[in-house]
Amino acid sequence: MKVSKLFTKTTRNISKEAESRNHELLVRGGYVDQLMAGAYTYLPLGLTVLKKIENIIREEMVSIGGQEILMPALQPAENWKKTGRWETVDDLYRFTSYYTKTELALAGTHEEVVSPLAKKFVFSYKDLPKYVFQIQTKFRDEKRAKSGILRGREFLMKDLYSLHTTQEDLDNFYEKAIKSYFKIFKRLGLQDKTYLTFASGGTFSKFSHEFQTVSDVGEDTIYLCEKCRVAVNQEIIAEQKECPKCKNKDFKKLKAIETGNIFQLGTKFSEPFNLKYLDKDGKEKLVIMGCFGMGPSRIMGTIVEVLSDDKGIVWPKEVTPYQVHLINLEENEKAEKLYENLKKDGIDVLWDDRVESAGVKFADADLLGIPIRVVVSSKSTKAGGYEFKFRNQDKTEIVNEKEFIKKIKDFYAK
Amino acid sequence: MKVSKLFTKTTRNISKEAESRNHELLVRGGYVDQLMAGAYTYLPLGLTVLKKIENIIREEMVSIGGQEILMPALQPAENWKKTGRWETVDDLYRFTSYYTKTELALAGTHEEVVSPLAKKFVFSYKDLPKYVFQIQTKFRDEKRAKSGILRGREFLMKDLYSLHTTQEDLDNFYEKAIKSYFKIFKRLGLQDKTYLTFASGGTFSKFSHEFQTVSDVGEDTIYLCEKCRVAVNQEIIAEQKECPKCKNKDFKKLKAIETGNIFQLGTKFSEPFNLKYLDKDGKEKLVIMGCFGMGPSRIMGTIVEVLSDDKGIVWPKEVTPYQVHLINLEENEKAEKLYENLKKDGIDVLWDDRVESAGVKFADADLLGIPIRVVVSSKSTKAGGYEFKFRNQDKTEIVNEKEFIKKIKDFYAK
Repeated sequence: MKVSKLFTKTTRNISKEAESRNHELLVRGGYVDQLMAGAYTYLPLGLTVLKKIENIIREEMVSIGGQEILMPALQPAENWKKTGRWETVDDLYRFTSYYTKTELALAGTHEEVVSPLAKKFVFSYKDLPKYVFQIQTKFRDEKRAKSGILRGREFLMKDLYSLHTTQEDLDNFYEKAIKSYFKIFKRLGLQDKTYLTFASGGTFSKFSHEFQTVSDVGEDTIYLCEKCRVAVNQEIIAEQKECPKCKNKDFKKLKAIETGNIFQLGTKFSEPFNLKYLDKDGKEKLVIMGCFGMGPSRIMGTIVEVLSDDKGIVWPKEVTPYQVHLINLEENEKAEKLYENLKKDGIDVLWDDRVESAGVKFADADLLGIPIRVVVSSKSTKAGGYEFKFRNQDKTEIVNEKEFIKKIKDFYAK
Repeated sequence: MKVSKLFTKTTRNISKEAESRNHELLVRGGYVDQLMAGAYTYLPLGLTVLKKIENIIREEMVSIGGQEILMPALQPAENWKKTGRWETVDDLYRFTSYYTKTELALAGTHEEVVSPLAKKFVFSYKDLPKYVFQIQTKFRDEKRAKSGILRGREFLMKDLYSLHTTQEDLDNFYEKAIKSYFKIFKRLGLQDKTYLTFASGGTFSKFSHEFQTVSDVGEDTIYLCEKCRVAVNQEIIAEQKECPKCKNKDFKKLKAIETGNIFQLGTKFSEPFNLKYLDKDGKEKLVIMGCFGMGPSRIMGTIVEVLSDDKGIVWPKEVTPYQVHLINLEENEKAEKLYENLKKDGIDVLWDDRVESAGVKFADADLLGIPIRVVVSSKSTKAGGYEFKFRNQDKTEIVNEKEFIKKIKDFYAK
């Protein structure tokens, strides 16, 4: 893509509304636009990043047996009344159809839909376990939507629901899901800052678990056990005062962003919807459920918060909108040829073909955060090639085209 | 995928709610589930079809220069008040945030978002033309949501918005978009039944255009000019009484489903949002806009309405959930081996591995509508291979594995 053809432009200054780094950098880079507090448009570069995050999550969910579905956001109030959550969920948008006078919920979670749905296909122990997930737009009537795309009124969510015959089967899958989440965080470049965090479990298990990514902008306080590298949340530290894994009592207090959460639901939702199966002895039993959430839009904001520097964003290689940021200073024809060659080679390249100063182009490249920058200029030509630089390093080097393509391919090879 | 592992099951009988063929077949096949009138869950097989339709549309929009974005469904009332549509759009869901008391719209169209958005990036004639599109979930407070997924209260929509300096430039793009739409209908297997239809144009052009796909279940009446193969809608026939293209006066009256619509918006939305550009002479001018809609979920319903037979669905090859439906009667090991070999060969195969009668398996294969069926049985083994059948033909033939794979690949080659 040529920068001159892009729908968006970068901007130096944005309105005072930006109360967080991810908002500021994503708006300045033309990745997102704020329509109102908590609702953002994903622009071409931003949507590419968001879809790459989605696909990483999708691949890992499929690899643990997840089957993808898509449930409606618009839901009948009666399902929510059945579970009692019509009254208790604070941030549920509730309204009434003008024509039919039906009471509706615009949902932020889908237990009220997936449970009666499963009832249509689950009859016997032979039909279990099953795992369904969706990557879907959710809505929450947030009191205060701040922190950019970290906390939206409309946002993207992956929610997987698991259906089991026994607690043991749920426990096994739960462990598998934890491993899968860590694989995802690794691919997202967040593994070093993300901790499995023990939280209160409710009725069906002693603990639930959150994945917390350390960042100053985080709304949660976690207590990291430096001995075994798990964390506990505020509630648990008050109750337990020791690490649930290693019994250590020394914790480091940190601020963090909740980037994933997993629950054992037990029979909380199978009960009101009478979701049962026949066991081997022909006895009716309630299905045991788990719920596994992760928000691609919040993840995108977290990556910006955690991995940016004072010049701009630094995308991890698996989620970058383009693989190479090509800049030319003079040398138009040479740049055009390189651009075409890179595309032929299957490399996604953003070419800043504008007539702008080196300073402007370099600043924009730093702001946009594509992992590899290459400069074509009379100076680089004289030196025998192109100037190559990684976004997260200061060092530049001159490489010829063959070396250059090999370096790119090596970097992006998994 | 093995049928025994699928989240869904086929069903013979469904509730009386099914008021249309697409609803009946899609629910019976386990493609979709109705949550309430107008809101459907897309189940694994159904979501695969929907995404393939989405991708065909996406590819063609990108090929005419479209850049993909994703705008919020949740929108501030003030944008709708600015255009006067807060009061006039009947099917707009309107509600108020419990916390912030903000008036909100849950939108069924995005002119009120894309126009102020474009204002942030369009300044000069050099920034035009631009084309942005999204494939996004829309909401409409429909008086009566019937006809299955043809008319939903929550549905998927592709909407492209084009931005131009001149009427001539819009006209040229408009023609290009018409061609692109016909390419899409060809890939969707709907080309023989879909007609460009002249409709009333509003203030900025004599006509707007609909794409109408002929079907008994359609809500629209169109008048087909058999001389030049375009159609006109009811309003136009009343006003014009002759074909706008060839002046012919003979029409055939037909029922049809509106599967696409394109409008010249002119300056209807750039005016209230003051969306202007500087022309070559430095003069401020209003941006001229076009709007190009097509609904992937409605398209999916239309395909089922138009291409099914009395036994079930018949998917066109580009949107089928799987390429091959493998059935075994006895011969489990042989079927398993074939299943693995097909997957290795990159062929998407659904294997009905259940212990069910031939009658049940054949009926389900006809219901699901995958274009190619192959049967492995002691009878076919004795005859020297597998029994091969196209869904839309009665003829079966015995083929060996090599011939079989070649036949599949030939069929799916574009």
